[in-house]
Amino acid sequence: MGSNPRLRALLLFFLGLFLTFASVHARAQGTFGDSATYNPLIRSFLNAGMWNTPAYDLLKRLVHIAPHRLSGSRDAARAVAWVQQSMLSLKFEKVHQESITVPHWVRGKIETARILGRHPYPLEVCALGKSVATPAQGIAAEVVEVHSLAEAKALGTKGKGKIIFFNRPMDATLMDTFEAYENSVDQRGGGAIAAASVGGVAALVRSMTMRNDRVPHTGVMGYVDSIAKVPAAAVSLVGADTLSARIRRSPHLRVRLVLTCRTLPDAPSANVMGQITGSEFPNEIIVISGHVDCWDKGEGAVDDGSGVVQALEALRLIKSLGLHPKRTIRAVAFMNEENGSRGGIGYARNPARTGERHIAAIESDRGGFTPRGFFYQVPQNTPPPAPRLLPALGQISAGYIRPGFSGVDILPLVDIGVPGFGLDVDSQRYFDYHHSDNDRLSVINPRELELGAIAEALLGYILAEGGLQSVSP
Amino acid sequence: MGSNPRLRALLLFFLGLFLTFASVHARAQGTFGDSATYNPLIRSFLNAGMWNTPAYDLLKRLVHIAPHRLSGSRDAARAVAWVQQSMLSLKFEKVHQESITVPHWVRGKIETARILGRHPYPLEVCALGKSVATPAQGIAAEVVEVHSLAEAKALGTKGKGKIIFFNRPMDATLMDTFEAYENSVDQRGGGAIAAASVGGVAALVRSMTMRNDRVPHTGVMGYVDSIAKVPAAAVSLVGADTLSARIRRSPHLRVRLVLTCRTLPDAPSANVMGQITGSEFPNEIIVISGHVDCWDKGEGAVDDGSGVVQALEALRLIKSLGLHPKRTIRAVAFMNEENGSRGGIGYARNPARTGERHIAAIESDRGGFTPRGFFYQVPQNTPPPAPRLLPALGQISAGYIRPGFSGVDILPLVDIGVPGFGLDVDSQRYFDYHHSDNDRLSVINPRELELGAIAEALLGYILAEGGLQSVSP
Repeated sequence: MGSNPRLRALLLFFLGLFLTFASVHARAQGTFGDSATYNPLIRSFLNAGMWNTPAYDLLKRLVHIAPHRLSGSRDAARAVAWVQQSMLSLKFEKVHQESITVPHWVRGKIETARILGRHPYPLEVCALGKSVATPAQGIAAEVVEVHSLAEAKALGTKGKGKIIFFNRPMDATLMDTFEAYENSVDQRGGGAIAAASVGGVAALVRSMTMRNDRVPHTGVMGYVDSIAKVPAAAVSLVGADTLSARIRRSPHLRVRLVLTCRTLPDAPSANVMGQITGSEFPNEIIVISGHVDCWDKGEGAVDDGSGVVQALEALRLIKSLGLHPKRTIRAVAFMNEENGSRGGIGYARNPARTGERHIAAIESDRGGFTPRGFFYQVPQNTPPPAPRLLPALGQISAGYIRPGFSGVDILPLVDIGVPGFGLDVDSQRYFDYHHSDNDRLSVINPRELELGAIAEALLGYILAEGGLQSVSP
Repeated sequence: MGSNPRLRALLLFFLGLFLTFASVHARAQGTFGDSATYNPLIRSFLNAGMWNTPAYDLLKRLVHIAPHRLSGSRDAARAVAWVQQSMLSLKFEKVHQESITVPHWVRGKIETARILGRHPYPLEVCALGKSVATPAQGIAAEVVEVHSLAEAKALGTKGKGKIIFFNRPMDATLMDTFEAYENSVDQRGGGAIAAASVGGVAALVRSMTMRNDRVPHTGVMGYVDSIAKVPAAAVSLVGADTLSARIRRSPHLRVRLVLTCRTLPDAPSANVMGQITGSEFPNEIIVISGHVDCWDKGEGAVDDGSGVVQALEALRLIKSLGLHPKRTIRAVAFMNEENGSRGGIGYARNPARTGERHIAAIESDRGGFTPRGFFYQVPQNTPPPAPRLLPALGQISAGYIRPGFSGVDILPLVDIGVPGFGLDVDSQRYFDYHHSDNDRLSVINPRELELGAIAEALLGYILAEGGLQSVSP
């Protein structure tokens, strides 16, 4: 788009038109009154954040210092130390770690798959988190393609000795890519169990992505004690489509899968937190959070380095304006969201919670993209909040608070009655990167990341100042 | 974000809650009735577009065949031929070119700038479009930094013999980055005139971007006959900030600027168009458009390859559903938006318009990012449309139609009374790429691009079927 000299005059004309409309609308609704308080606040946050976008600088340092932050790893420990040091540098109060014990699964050096036969072809694979290894020489077996757990279980004796290939794609027609993910991820979580239940020897799962490339996407899977534990790996979309096409031509096609992952004894780790202590009700807490662990592929810039640095930045923004909220705002970097949720559970159960009253918990774990609003998750029978904040949030395009999922790490708080808010964002790109080598700093835009921090700062500050009633009808 | 087995149950619960709310709301508003028509349509478009995202494949071919499509160039001619061929392949009707004559400015092989003195330093620059060249040995002069055209003009005799350096940044706190652009771009458009008016020998302009890198961003500038024509170049943000810091330390700092650009005689070129001819009112036209020319830096994938392929894809989508709209839907690839607007003007004035009645014109020229809504530009005193379409558009996150700028190419139509619609998108990343080497296919996400085409297909089809009253109160 080029420049046009008449644009400004036109814009002014329409701005007037719009303001007239908005003001009439405000009077009609009777809920725009809060704009008088919130609108200057959002402008102050924009001024304090958008010129230098500090969240991005924090993210750059985090992924440089500790790119492969899977629970129990050396990088996870480095990341915990870095978050603590950053909170101290930002002059947060009561900066400390709370110890937890985490699963310690390691990928191993080798993970390969190959179509065997006269036209061998390498498939890009990666072990799914928690998977057992194959024997050293790998597992070579015929592959059966299915599109659901039910279809796998219906194989009966036909599944015996086979590698079961789960190839149902994410639904590309859904605007909310998280919905598409939730509709397909049962194959990853339950594929190994379903495969083993019919005598299958391994599970191969189409990556949970819609990006048509050669990059496999990992993620957690599960076993049950009553069924044999068979290895499970994700295959890239190009690999999955190739494998599917080859199976159609050669129904008895064989693949050799080699995985060297293993599970070590649980390891010590920690959540990290720091806060702005409330001036009137210091024991009433608003949590703003993300998770500091990530998969060992990529750098975890999207999932969930973004959420961690946004929590730090949200508190920095509030402090930078010289605000002294009545209630405590606490930034929490949770550990072990990806393969155990031990951080979220540990936080909710920690004896330090005694004497604290959690007003609300906010989490950003959908990537550092342009914010769109918040999902609000309340204990059953509690009414969802009225949109008193929406005019202010709408100014940064985050103008809705809708019922929905809040966040894995804050779910243990929601379970004990704390309202949870999950930052919702433009989700079109998220699964291009999620749990894969594609999840790198370079895919994060500094402005989009900062806007999420500002949305959290606004919501967090208003909750801290006015309590939950500030967002209630 | 990991997977959580309770998520689905929770989502279903909240979905129920939301549907109840939505249905009550629908009855209360009395405007959701259109959803009965439009909602299945948007779902059909999603099915027809999102699985394979064909707009992205078109864009890939366009930027591969003709990356440097500045008006008058070889690539511009190739692009015109490619668009025509693509329209024929897609079985559009009445595919043809309409000839226009375009400015033919060429960059030349050398464009450099260098801080002189004991600590020389190279600045990344590029000539602004239409600029004259420097002498072959360049222009070496002292640099004066200003932050507005007014400040330059106020220099008086202090400007004589100087390179005037316009360094007012885009306002990073504005959510609408196009507003920030409009507030700063006068320096690029009018810098050379202001510089020459006080005896300056050249204009150096901070690039119109907020991305802090070493890439300069070009764009059109202007001269007036009454004032000397001095060369004008853009400098990268890293260069501009370095230059500014060096000037503070050394007020008499000198820079040598070398540009070898020149203006050749006007060249023949063309707009390209093809259509789905209306079944009842073939002479009533809805235009869906973008511009096929782009700056010679980068590949013009964002500005405005996206808009061109979205216009093609919008018509393909409509045809793929077997729809036969009552009015004609015409895809137009305009030429010369960037440095002359000859395409838009030529289209509106072409004798072929006689006997045609344009119902509306839609343009996408804000980059192929996630759609957010439409700006609606009407002749003065015409009321803006009521939001009867919003529920359907809202399903693809494009749920507003607001007064605003429609598009440079369709402005000549708006000027003669045709309502214009400009696709609005998430604009946070746009100026990272705009008019620079950063504008490449790799920054476009196939899903985001396709969603824009779907928004245009929906709006275009409904206008074609129901006329302008279909979006009126």
